Amino acid sequence: MPEHTVSAFDTELVKLDDELMQMGHLAVAQVSAAVETMVTRDAATAERLIEQDAELDRLDAEIEHQSISLIARRQPIAQDLRRVVAAMRIAHNLERCGDLAKNIAKRTLATAEAEPLVALTTIERMGQLVASRLNDVLEAHNANAVEPALAVWRRDKEVDALYDNAFRELLTYMMADPRTITAAAHLLFVAKNLERIGDHATNIAELVQYRVTGEAVPGSGRPKWDALAKRDEA
Amino acid sequence: MPEHTVSAFDTELVKLDDELMQMGHLAVAQVSAAVETMVTRDAATAERLIEQDAELDRLDAEIEHQSISLIARRQPIAQDLRRVVAAMRIAHNLERCGDLAKNIAKRTLATAEAEPLVALTTIERMGQLVASRLNDVLEAHNANAVEPALAVWRRDKEVDALYDNAFRELLTYMMADPRTITAAAHLLFVAKNLERIGDHATNIAELVQYRVTGEAVPGSGRPKWDALAKRDEA
Repeated sequence: MPEHTVSAFDTELVKLDDELMQMGHLAVAQVSAAVETMVTRDAATAERLIEQDAELDRLDAEIEHQSISLIARRQPIAQDLRRVVAAMRIAHNLERCGDLAKNIAKRTLATAEAEPLVALTTIERMGQLVASRLNDVLEAHNANAVEPALAVWRRDKEVDALYDNAFRELLTYMMADPRTITAAAHLLFVAKNLERIGDHATNIAELVQYRVTGEAVPGSGRPKWDALAKRDEA
Repeated sequence: MPEHTVSAFDTELVKLDDELMQMGHLAVAQVSAAVETMVTRDAATAERLIEQDAELDRLDAEIEHQSISLIARRQPIAQDLRRVVAAMRIAHNLERCGDLAKNIAKRTLATAEAEPLVALTTIERMGQLVASRLNDVLEAHNANAVEPALAVWRRDKEVDALYDNAFRELLTYMMADPRTITAAAHLLFVAKNLERIGDHATNIAELVQYRVTGEAVPGSGRPKWDALAKRDEA
């Protein structure tokens, strides 16, 4: 293969990764901002975030398009192929994070007229934790660094524990005061959305490992190619 | 391209579609059965369904693997490319349906010890509706038939309306009797999961249209390639 062809391919791979990082930073910002609108009850910003989600959909479609085109034109193998496949799957995970953030912003609007909301401290802490995990795993991807990605993967249990706390706390409020039930029901979904964003950070961690080493995460119980499959929590 | 190569390619495409249909029927069966375990409070079957979800994960990974391999080896264009890309994306949607069904089965276990459950008639009706929509759209895919797929797409509002009813009904029970709160909270998530399975049926309808015509669904407000993107509800 002539030198210039290899370089053009490398340039395309770098462009793909750049778009993925741009998408990642937007997803982190949307998640943080969505939780913030819930905590500060900022309906105007929530509406803006809902509109901005279209940009994540566009980037996901763009990255998929480029990935498939790259595979068809270049027939990459081994690490190059893994890099393209991982980019496509990471983009899908980020697009889902965007959907979940958008849904949180919608619930800011749905609860705008409700009594003072409950359990917001827990929700805020959960939001900060998952946004920072998502940011950490994107940094790991950017640095091609498996160990920091695995650190995010190993710490997913902390997000799950916070979710279990939020679930119990919200039910306790509901039982103590029926006037909190409607808002607390929406907040149950907000907490669940944040837990799922944590799962997507974990999926991305697995994809970083897969991209770099071709291996699934030890103990994730999945064969090699299955590391590409999404985590199975709903 | 020699004749036998074209035939081999066609054979591969048919095999891909066959696996997709196999996966689709399994997904429909898992959704129906999961709702049934909730209604009949059948913990043993719920446990079996949770285990069986791994088969949907395996089929999704297998279909993605085959699709990417096909794109790299054959460089399909136009309708052939759309057929492969649609198969890969439909498999991801079915895998998500499986996750959501698995989550319903887990909630059958979580509520096994609870007081008599509430709103089960609504949940059962919703489950039957989304399972039949999912089945309809898979039949449409199998027949390469755009119109029946669009019929599923247009009727998604009925699923959404049932979800809104279920949400309100469950909140009413919670307010009337705090002892129902824990089980009703789980059932809120079951109803949401079913609504999202309805969204996946709608996504698949768009992918059938895309595969056959290369067009996005009229009025879905998306440019061509974006028809591949997932629906944006969380």
